[in-house]
Amino acid sequence: MLAFDLIEYQNRLRKTKQKMSESGIDVLLISDPANMYYLTGYDAWSFYVHQMLIIISDEDQPIWIGRYMDANGVKKTTWLYDENVMAYPDYYVHSTNYHPMEYIAEVLSQIGQGNRNIGVEMDHYYFSAKAYDSLKRGLPNATFKDGDLIVNYVRMVKSDQEIYYMKRAAKIAEQAMFRGTEMIRTGVRECDAAATMYYNMISGTEEYGGDYPSIVPLLPSGENTGNPHLTWSDRKYVEGEAVIVELAGCYKRYHSPLARTVSIGKPSRRLQNLEPVVLEGIDKVLHAIKPGMTCGEVEEVWSKSIKKYGFHKEARIGYSVGLNYPPDWGEHTASLRKADETILQPNMTFHLIPALWFDQHGIEISESIRITENGCETLANYPRELIVQDPFPRAQQSGIIS
Amino acid sequence: MLAFDLIEYQNRLRKTKQKMSESGIDVLLISDPANMYYLTGYDAWSFYVHQMLIIISDEDQPIWIGRYMDANGVKKTTWLYDENVMAYPDYYVHSTNYHPMEYIAEVLSQIGQGNRNIGVEMDHYYFSAKAYDSLKRGLPNATFKDGDLIVNYVRMVKSDQEIYYMKRAAKIAEQAMFRGTEMIRTGVRECDAAATMYYNMISGTEEYGGDYPSIVPLLPSGENTGNPHLTWSDRKYVEGEAVIVELAGCYKRYHSPLARTVSIGKPSRRLQNLEPVVLEGIDKVLHAIKPGMTCGEVEEVWSKSIKKYGFHKEARIGYSVGLNYPPDWGEHTASLRKADETILQPNMTFHLIPALWFDQHGIEISESIRITENGCETLANYPRELIVQDPFPRAQQSGIIS
Repeated sequence: MLAFDLIEYQNRLRKTKQKMSESGIDVLLISDPANMYYLTGYDAWSFYVHQMLIIISDEDQPIWIGRYMDANGVKKTTWLYDENVMAYPDYYVHSTNYHPMEYIAEVLSQIGQGNRNIGVEMDHYYFSAKAYDSLKRGLPNATFKDGDLIVNYVRMVKSDQEIYYMKRAAKIAEQAMFRGTEMIRTGVRECDAAATMYYNMISGTEEYGGDYPSIVPLLPSGENTGNPHLTWSDRKYVEGEAVIVELAGCYKRYHSPLARTVSIGKPSRRLQNLEPVVLEGIDKVLHAIKPGMTCGEVEEVWSKSIKKYGFHKEARIGYSVGLNYPPDWGEHTASLRKADETILQPNMTFHLIPALWFDQHGIEISESIRITENGCETLANYPRELIVQDPFPRAQQSGIIS
Repeated sequence: MLAFDLIEYQNRLRKTKQKMSESGIDVLLISDPANMYYLTGYDAWSFYVHQMLIIISDEDQPIWIGRYMDANGVKKTTWLYDENVMAYPDYYVHSTNYHPMEYIAEVLSQIGQGNRNIGVEMDHYYFSAKAYDSLKRGLPNATFKDGDLIVNYVRMVKSDQEIYYMKRAAKIAEQAMFRGTEMIRTGVRECDAAATMYYNMISGTEEYGGDYPSIVPLLPSGENTGNPHLTWSDRKYVEGEAVIVELAGCYKRYHSPLARTVSIGKPSRRLQNLEPVVLEGIDKVLHAIKPGMTCGEVEEVWSKSIKKYGFHKEARIGYSVGLNYPPDWGEHTASLRKADETILQPNMTFHLIPALWFDQHGIEISESIRITENGCETLANYPRELIVQDPFPRAQQSGIIS
C-alpha cells in the first residue's frame, strides 16, 4: 500500500529530527499534508479540518491527531502504530465553541510535552492564526518556535523513487497537454478543453493512473493571457486568439508541471516576437544549469538573455517542485530568483517557468527539470514551440478517446 | 463578465459592514477567496500566495492587495476601481526574508488605518499564524479582533440568483454521478471512474460549462468505505465490493454536493441492512425540515429515526453549503448537529450527509437542500437507493461520450 519502503520513511524522519535539533526544537507539529504524507504515507482529503502530525525528538514513532472519522484511514494507510493515532470528537469541527487545537494541546500536556520547545509551521495554509493562539493558550509553559519549512527543506533533494514518480507524472502531463490543446480550436468551449485535460490527468496512462494535481489547469485566453491565474469559463474560443495552458501531471502526489502557449490560427505578431526570446532564454538556462550553481545565478542567465532584446521579468523564473497538496504544487523553499543562495544539488527538481506577462498578452513556456550529476534534464519531452492549432473545430467533440 | 448584478455586490458589502459595526470592527481584512469572490467577483487561483481584500467601514470601495502578477486580473474581472487594486513585488512570494503582510501593514498605515479596530479571519486556511504575527508587528497601534466568518454568515441565506447557480451545479452533479457510477464495474480502474466524473463535472451540460469543485471526488471502496476522505488509486474494482461516491457539481464557484453508495453486483448483507435505515432517516428529515426549526432539531429527527434500529452517529449530519474554494465546499457556519441553535430560514442551503461509517464498511447517501418558505427541496433529482451495478465491465472504456 505505501508508496515508499519503510526505510525511506525512516530516513526522512531521521533527517527531520536532525533539522529539529539544529533549530532547538523538541517537538515538531506538522499541519502541512504534504509533510504528513512524506513522513507517514497518509493521503486523504481530510486537511480541510485541523489535524496534526507530532514528531517528538526522543520518540521513534510520530503521533497523528485528527478528526474522529479520519483516524481509521490513518491506521489503515500509514506505517504508524494504531496506538499513535488519536482523534478528537466531531463537535470540534467548524465550531465557534471548541477548537481542535485545545484537544491537541491537552494531549501534548498529558504525554509530558507541555513544557518543551515546540515547532509549528508558522506560514502554512493549514496552520491558522487561531490554531496558533489556541495552542499557545493551551500550552502556557511551552516555548514556541518557527518550524516552518523544516520538512520542506528535507524534501528538496529527491530520492530515485521520487524522481521515478515525477517522471510518471511528466508522462501524464504530456498526454494532458497534447489532448487538451487539441481541443483548443474555434468554437470549442474552454470548459471542454479543461475537461479533456482533467480526464487525461486523472485517468493517466494504460500502465498507471493519475492523481489530482494541486492546482487546476490554468487557462487564460485572449486579452487575459497576461493574467496567469485565471481558470476557464464556457466561452467559445475564437480564431486568432492565444491561450496559455499551465497544468501538471500528478502521480502519487508528485507533480510535473508543464506550460505551453497555443495560438488558434496564425500567431499574433506580438507572440511571434516573444517566442524566440523565451525559447532562447530557456535553452540558455537549461544548458547553464549544473550542481554547485546558486538559484540566483540561474536567474541571471535568463535575465541576461532576455535583456539583449529589451525585456525584463519582475517575477521569479521558477521554484522547487514535487510533492504537494492543494492549493500549491510548489514546495515553498528555493526560488529561481535574484539573491536566492540555494546551491543546486543532484535530484533537486524545479519548475522553470520564465513566463512574460503584459497588460493585454503574455507567453508561458515551462519545463519541470531535475538537476543531474553534471547538468539538468527535463522531466517531460514535449516540443517547446508555440502550439499553432488549425482554427477549425474538430469533427469529434471530445479529445479523450485515443 | 460578473456573475451578479452590481446591486447584489453592494448589498453584500452593506450587510458585511453592518456586521462589522456590530462587532466593533472598522477595517475587515479578508483572506478567504470565497469571501473575496462574494464581495468583488474576483475568481482566480491566486490564493496560494498571500492576498487581502480590505473593507473599510467608512469607504465605499474595498481595496485589494496581492501579488504583482495577479493585480491586472483583479482590475479586469471585478467591479473595483483600478486605483483600489495594489500589488506587492514578487520578492515577497514564498520568501524567508520578506512577508506580504509587512507590505499590507505598511499600506494600511499609510492610508490612516493603522490605529483602528482591525478584524482578521482568524481560523481561515489562508490566514496563517505568521501572517497574523507579521500584521501585528507592522501595526502596533491597531486593535485586532476576530473577524472570522463575518462574511460567511452573510453568505448563508442565498439570493435567487445564487440558488439558480446551485441548481445548475446540481444538474452537473447528477450527470457526473450517473456517468461516473456507470464506470464502477469489475475490472475498471478507480482512476478511470474518477476521470469520468471529472470530465462531466468540468464539461458541464450542453447549455453551460462546469467549474472545478473545491473537493475532489471522494471514492473509498471495499474495506475502506468506512474511511470517508480517501480518494482513488489505479486499482481495479472487483465484483461484490461497495464503493462510496461523494462529489459535487460546481457552477460559478457554487456547489451542490451529492453522495451515493454503489455495489458492484449483489450488495452485502451489511449494506442491505443499512440502506433502509438511512433512507428512512433522510426521508424523515426532509419531511420535518421547515423554516424556524434549529439545526439541532433537524439532527434530532435523524438520531431518533436511526436509534430505533440501534444506530448512533457521532458526526454532524450536514452543514451549510454553497460558494467556496479549495479545500472545502462547506461554509463553516451552521452544522446540522446537537446544540447548533441556528434557525433555518428560506434560501439557506445545506449538504445533508448522514453517512454511517464503521471499521470495515460504511454507507453514504446525501442531498443538497434548499430551505423553502414552508419546507425544503432537494437541489438534485437523483434516486437515493443503493446503486447496484452489473458487475461485468462495459464494452466501452470511457463514460464520456453520451
